[in-house]
Amino acid sequence: MDNVIDFINVHRDRYLEELKALLAIPSISALPEHAPDVRRCAEWCADEMRRVGLQNVRLVETPGNPVVYGDWLGAPGAPTMLFYGHYDVQPVDPVELWDSPPFEATVRDGELYARGAADDKGQVFMHLKAIEAFMKQNGRLPVNVKMILEGEEEVGSNNLDDFVRGHRQELKADVVVISDSPMFDRGVPSICYGLRGLAYFQIDLRGTKTDLHSGSFGGAVANPAYVLATMIAQMKDKGGRIRIPGFYDDVRELSDAERAEFRKLPFNETRYRKELGAPKLFGERGYTTLERVWGRPTLEVNGLLSGFTGDGAKTVIPAVAMAKISMRLVPDQHPDKIAQQFEAYVRRIAPKSVELTFTRMHGGKPWMTSFDNPFVRAAGRAIAKGFGKEPVFTREGGSIPVVSTFQEELGIPSVLFGVGLPDENAHAPNEKIDLGNFHNGIVASAIFYQELAGVAVHA
Amino acid sequence: MDNVIDFINVHRDRYLEELKALLAIPSISALPEHAPDVRRCAEWCADEMRRVGLQNVRLVETPGNPVVYGDWLGAPGAPTMLFYGHYDVQPVDPVELWDSPPFEATVRDGELYARGAADDKGQVFMHLKAIEAFMKQNGRLPVNVKMILEGEEEVGSNNLDDFVRGHRQELKADVVVISDSPMFDRGVPSICYGLRGLAYFQIDLRGTKTDLHSGSFGGAVANPAYVLATMIAQMKDKGGRIRIPGFYDDVRELSDAERAEFRKLPFNETRYRKELGAPKLFGERGYTTLERVWGRPTLEVNGLLSGFTGDGAKTVIPAVAMAKISMRLVPDQHPDKIAQQFEAYVRRIAPKSVELTFTRMHGGKPWMTSFDNPFVRAAGRAIAKGFGKEPVFTREGGSIPVVSTFQEELGIPSVLFGVGLPDENAHAPNEKIDLGNFHNGIVASAIFYQELAGVAVHA
Repeated sequence: MDNVIDFINVHRDRYLEELKALLAIPSISALPEHAPDVRRCAEWCADEMRRVGLQNVRLVETPGNPVVYGDWLGAPGAPTMLFYGHYDVQPVDPVELWDSPPFEATVRDGELYARGAADDKGQVFMHLKAIEAFMKQNGRLPVNVKMILEGEEEVGSNNLDDFVRGHRQELKADVVVISDSPMFDRGVPSICYGLRGLAYFQIDLRGTKTDLHSGSFGGAVANPAYVLATMIAQMKDKGGRIRIPGFYDDVRELSDAERAEFRKLPFNETRYRKELGAPKLFGERGYTTLERVWGRPTLEVNGLLSGFTGDGAKTVIPAVAMAKISMRLVPDQHPDKIAQQFEAYVRRIAPKSVELTFTRMHGGKPWMTSFDNPFVRAAGRAIAKGFGKEPVFTREGGSIPVVSTFQEELGIPSVLFGVGLPDENAHAPNEKIDLGNFHNGIVASAIFYQELAGVAVHA
Repeated sequence: MDNVIDFINVHRDRYLEELKALLAIPSISALPEHAPDVRRCAEWCADEMRRVGLQNVRLVETPGNPVVYGDWLGAPGAPTMLFYGHYDVQPVDPVELWDSPPFEATVRDGELYARGAADDKGQVFMHLKAIEAFMKQNGRLPVNVKMILEGEEEVGSNNLDDFVRGHRQELKADVVVISDSPMFDRGVPSICYGLRGLAYFQIDLRGTKTDLHSGSFGGAVANPAYVLATMIAQMKDKGGRIRIPGFYDDVRELSDAERAEFRKLPFNETRYRKELGAPKLFGERGYTTLERVWGRPTLEVNGLLSGFTGDGAKTVIPAVAMAKISMRLVPDQHPDKIAQQFEAYVRRIAPKSVELTFTRMHGGKPWMTSFDNPFVRAAGRAIAKGFGKEPVFTREGGSIPVVSTFQEELGIPSVLFGVGLPDENAHAPNEKIDLGNFHNGIVASAIFYQELAGVAVHA
């Protein structure tokens, strides 16, 4: 094992340069014009899998972007780990808020800034380098590895369920490993045991066939931008509680034990608020900030557009108004049921003076695992050695819908082995990864594979 | 007089070609990148004034766009008319909704489509051609004329008050004539005796310093797009009544006589609704549609922008959210007082979880005149002859703030001599002017000048 870790320490600078090349590919899955970049990125990943020593590497086509597959199955009797990551990234708008170009990875103060640095290219690359170190030094891995990288995580993983369902046999494994989440804080490595789900919608209202002069027509017709605001305002009460009928029916309340664990974590609310630049924190009445983000569902407006939005004053009654609205879900809410409840509510509160178009965009289920799973404990030991500190156990507010898919389709647990930071700016300008964590993450990944080898499995 | 009208009838086709040239200049005052076009348009208008026979033609510089001035003062003892119009136009977005390019004037079914066709280049051009006809046929006009064309009407006429105040002596006249309003309906020529005022604002909210991942942070901070919606929803009640404290204090109620006049007008609510493409008309409870648009104040959202507005789903909590909100005012509301009331209300309903920036953009006073003014009666006779039909007396929902300025600074009444149509699409895609009305408008303008010559004035 020491020779593997030595190899990782020696090649630190090379890893950074290689990662920069991966981050230079603008593989934005949400924007059709970047489709060629998404494919180029898939090919880059396949080439890299081959370089580090994986076998059977190929692009598996889907109705959307391809899944990149590779494996190494030379450890009979040892457990098989299925690594899941994604090579697509979020859009970069508003691009003018980036301090360096999003696709020219730039180091500042020990952190690497680029779209995808943390979510998820940097964390995928960590595992590729751990695999490379074993293969170069020992010519083998301590466990069997199957690796899949998808290209649609940032747009809802619409084709991954079918891919997994269609390749149940090839993907057979003992545990799924995913590195796509942040650690609790700088210097506080963590294992995440719960994720929120997602339900995402678009609401379009039309008031009239064209924009109208607000003088000549103001007062005669409903203004869809105004109506949209009144509809949104009916979605939550003043205490931040969501008013969609039935929304909370399936919410699993936080246990006293969890709430007690969360309270022990080194969470400084003032520092958190200042880092976000918020004048005041705000959330559902009756819960702490960590409880709100990890264990409670939310409803957010993700985008608003209507009428004249340029500089100056245009006296127009907009013909149309649009809102993107999404909810984060917690166990045991189901995105399909939530979608039905939300659509019914929106149709009920929409006045007859506007035409409503309701679009379901995508959803993902929430997920939780148990602490005493042997794979989770192996990950805990690896993190303790790689980072020199026992991990804390946390939940995460984000969604990794595929975790539920693996549980349901393959019947195996997931280990969320994430080394991002809470201020990594995933999905926002100036996304970054801490280079120290990136390096320790490669070491911890290598140790994790070794620890996994010791977990007894049904051969 | 007949020879003048003959001249107008003979040159009909030439007028259309000349107007097309004027409409080809994209003099959009709201967009800084069009500043050179705005100036080019001013110069075009000055050249045209010279061509038709006006004298002392010049561009008068202001801190913004120049005012184009020209006069003809060769009728001592006769009244002096001050013609006011504007050569700037509204932006054209959403440009994809235009059926022909907004700056390539196109005739379809007897109507000329282009930005500015009705508001206000087409109507200004009518008067230039009436002047030309008199000058070519008689070598003189029946009245003295001073003409001013401003370049900032669509952005609030911010420099016109100072211009008028600074040129009180040069602008001395007996009546202001403005052609910048629609007639009541196709085939129903009208004289407008009242206008609404305007108060326009922008509200910007900031929740955090950057956009945030809605999973990692959803639940912890206020979402400025959501907060903005809740604030907007507090601006009117369900009956469409504005909830700003004090807002209705100075509203002059519609008289029973006015309401009776309005009820006599040939207004078909179903046709009106269908032309607008609205599923249902909506406005302040207790008033008819015409009363709402002409005699009641309104509050409209003119634009909304926040977060991710492209195709697809981006799971972001926006850092900022923006709304453009304006009110139409009626006598005797004052835009400054309304601005104070609105700002106080917005500051009161903004929660402490967001940073608020409140911007006053521009305002204009509402206006009304009396029916028995001799200039108004002269206009009525001219319209009756030019269009072959007695005009109806109406109010208009739009704003021409300078009407108040002329009343206050020069102490003279205005006559609103407008030949646009209610469906002319001013400020919207597919703006147009009816070519029949354009032609009759030139004839009526010429007759109006003749009629004005007969009004007794203090020499």
